[in-house]
Amino acid sequence: MTDLNEQGRHAKKAAYELGMAGSAKKDRALSEIAAVLTEKADEWLSANAEDLKAAEASGMRSSMLDRLRLTRERIDGIVKGVLQVRELPDPIGHVDCMDQRPNGLIIGKKRVPLGVIGIIYEARPNVTVDAAVLCLKSGNVCILRGGKEAIHSNMCAVRLMREALKKAGLPEDCVSLIEDTSRASAEALMHLDEYVDVLIPRGGAGLIRTVAKEASVPVIRTGEGVCHIYVDDEADLDMAADILYNAKCSRPSVCNAAECVLINERVEEAFLKKAVPLLDKDKVELRCDEKALAIVGNRGTAAAEEDWDAEYDDYILAVRTVKDMDEAIDFINRHGTSHSEAIITDNYFKAQEFLERVDAAAVYVNASTRFTDGFEFGLGAEIGISTQKLHARGPMGLQELTTIKYIIYGKGQVR
Amino acid sequence: MTDLNEQGRHAKKAAYELGMAGSAKKDRALSEIAAVLTEKADEWLSANAEDLKAAEASGMRSSMLDRLRLTRERIDGIVKGVLQVRELPDPIGHVDCMDQRPNGLIIGKKRVPLGVIGIIYEARPNVTVDAAVLCLKSGNVCILRGGKEAIHSNMCAVRLMREALKKAGLPEDCVSLIEDTSRASAEALMHLDEYVDVLIPRGGAGLIRTVAKEASVPVIRTGEGVCHIYVDDEADLDMAADILYNAKCSRPSVCNAAECVLINERVEEAFLKKAVPLLDKDKVELRCDEKALAIVGNRGTAAAEEDWDAEYDDYILAVRTVKDMDEAIDFINRHGTSHSEAIITDNYFKAQEFLERVDAAAVYVNASTRFTDGFEFGLGAEIGISTQKLHARGPMGLQELTTIKYIIYGKGQVR
Repeated sequence: MTDLNEQGRHAKKAAYELGMAGSAKKDRALSEIAAVLTEKADEWLSANAEDLKAAEASGMRSSMLDRLRLTRERIDGIVKGVLQVRELPDPIGHVDCMDQRPNGLIIGKKRVPLGVIGIIYEARPNVTVDAAVLCLKSGNVCILRGGKEAIHSNMCAVRLMREALKKAGLPEDCVSLIEDTSRASAEALMHLDEYVDVLIPRGGAGLIRTVAKEASVPVIRTGEGVCHIYVDDEADLDMAADILYNAKCSRPSVCNAAECVLINERVEEAFLKKAVPLLDKDKVELRCDEKALAIVGNRGTAAAEEDWDAEYDDYILAVRTVKDMDEAIDFINRHGTSHSEAIITDNYFKAQEFLERVDAAAVYVNASTRFTDGFEFGLGAEIGISTQKLHARGPMGLQELTTIKYIIYGKGQVR
Repeated sequence: MTDLNEQGRHAKKAAYELGMAGSAKKDRALSEIAAVLTEKADEWLSANAEDLKAAEASGMRSSMLDRLRLTRERIDGIVKGVLQVRELPDPIGHVDCMDQRPNGLIIGKKRVPLGVIGIIYEARPNVTVDAAVLCLKSGNVCILRGGKEAIHSNMCAVRLMREALKKAGLPEDCVSLIEDTSRASAEALMHLDEYVDVLIPRGGAGLIRTVAKEASVPVIRTGEGVCHIYVDDEADLDMAADILYNAKCSRPSVCNAAECVLINERVEEAFLKKAVPLLDKDKVELRCDEKALAIVGNRGTAAAEEDWDAEYDDYILAVRTVKDMDEAIDFINRHGTSHSEAIITDNYFKAQEFLERVDAAAVYVNASTRFTDGFEFGLGAEIGISTQKLHARGPMGLQELTTIKYIIYGKGQVR
């Protein structure tokens, strides 16, 4: 992988320059990117058409084709996103705190970029631009490795962004694409320790687990979401049904959607009476434990063991009876992916205890898990939702793409 | 490695309990640890004597024997350290920020422990206690894997600490030791992803690189220090000589000691005239480039290529001539380990530029690199000095052993 080494070396060199480029220059690059993607949308659309043609020929299923597809409207949305990122405050250069020590040393913690970020993702061409502009705004260079299905779309988008970077007076190598979409190229990127500071895989659980397992470059795991809603015996059951319906059905393909409802046995029948008619609206398949199945009858099927750990990303819901909140919390801590978990209850003490005891990036009382998202949390943008504990947890915005550097002003101090 | 799996499972269970134990209980455990280590110091000393006897028989060199050795005075020092950690503020439970979103959701970021921390270290029995109490104070369970040379000392210290934990009403499994000191046990710990949240290797560069390379558990790299002092042509040369002498000789075995001085050619002769007599006091060996060698004559020897990347941890200094600050910065960014770097200059603009352009955890103007340390930086304690960019950079105190959890208070919000 001599080429990738070369690409890494160029990226690292560009990172040095980009790290010191001020906000004005970075914002100008973002404006240029928005402009070129608008002006040359036709080029991007026809590159995308090539990908779509190949994908159709290979028999790709329609939901995947839809993810791969660009339209003029979608490009407008992507461009709008670029301009929104441009408007966010620059996280770089902020000194988090600065203090004078007893010996007179003045020590500050200054925000600096991470450096070079590798992004490994699947067949969504919008990620190419989204990820690149978030990296750029936060002073980071990115090396993109997208799926082979989107290779023409990605090559075009990266070529256009590099044009824009050049116009703005920044190194083109601030954004680069690995054009070789073989498995070997992904593996090489996972071991490019010398040049890559962090890898962020974006995509399905399989991709993320593989990268986390194989990479020697540090990885931030994102987006694995087996989220639960626990309906307490002291819950407002109408509210609980609304929240469950929203958490399951408002967008089942995303990681903050609920996959499993845990229902206190004392209210199970009453709750299901309210919830099932809502779930019926989207023909949600119910995979139930014995007790729940006895209630819903042939509206559900018996859950298998693997249903309790499944990330369906689809109109399917696992339904399980629990004796009390303790059992719910134990179940969540064993079967969850530490993403988003919710309790629905009127009881103050249970609410507080659930918040305390559930081990997840986001723990909710009386709200839908669907809110776990950089925009909803007020970060202004999001590169992913970290389900690990190191570096960042939960939605990752621009701040999470930075690190710090201690700067120390002395006047001859020795120790 | 069934046993280690079992140990991991117990650790994870203990982490759940410890994470919710309040400060009072954790502080009581720290008091009990200090008490038992004082009361039963003899037991610890005789366990240590066993290790020392075996080490001597195996021909361990005296500097290593010294690291392995416990004395009553050293135990007093360790106990004092435990009590100091007890007095630090508890980082857990603090809500970094809490805000109400436009939809009424109240979202806060609460500090929580990382969980289970694996510590892999060498033959210093003090690390066993130091690391355990820092983990404990920050609500983290630790699994310790020390060097085989210190196994009796470590087994004794861990047994005593577990006694203390029990007395304080906390699970004994908050601290545990891997008693198997084979290479296989270290490797198994590096892959105990299911139970271990982070690995912190403490020791020499070889150990750290091996762990970073092999582990699938996330690692925080610490303590690799090839630090430089750049003496500018506009430096106060007396100050520069004092700082260099301090950075090299005050404690050469530690990671924040300087390994290489870069001297602006315009002041090289004058500077060396001042610095060499100081370095003579400790018989510092000088490994010089051609120009420096021409100045110091037979006081130095010619540096080999590997000297420019060497972490000597000894009374040896690499001496290199540079044309200007640009060359110094390039050299540092290529050959440094991103630990601590210093410029000595009177020039305001160069000082600011050096702070900006050098990529390291701590960048100094006119002060010794020896200050990079949790105590000196005011963190109160230190588990190591991170030389990576993810999660933590520079000295790691209690705060760096935590992560966050988003807590969200709703009243029925759906998206």
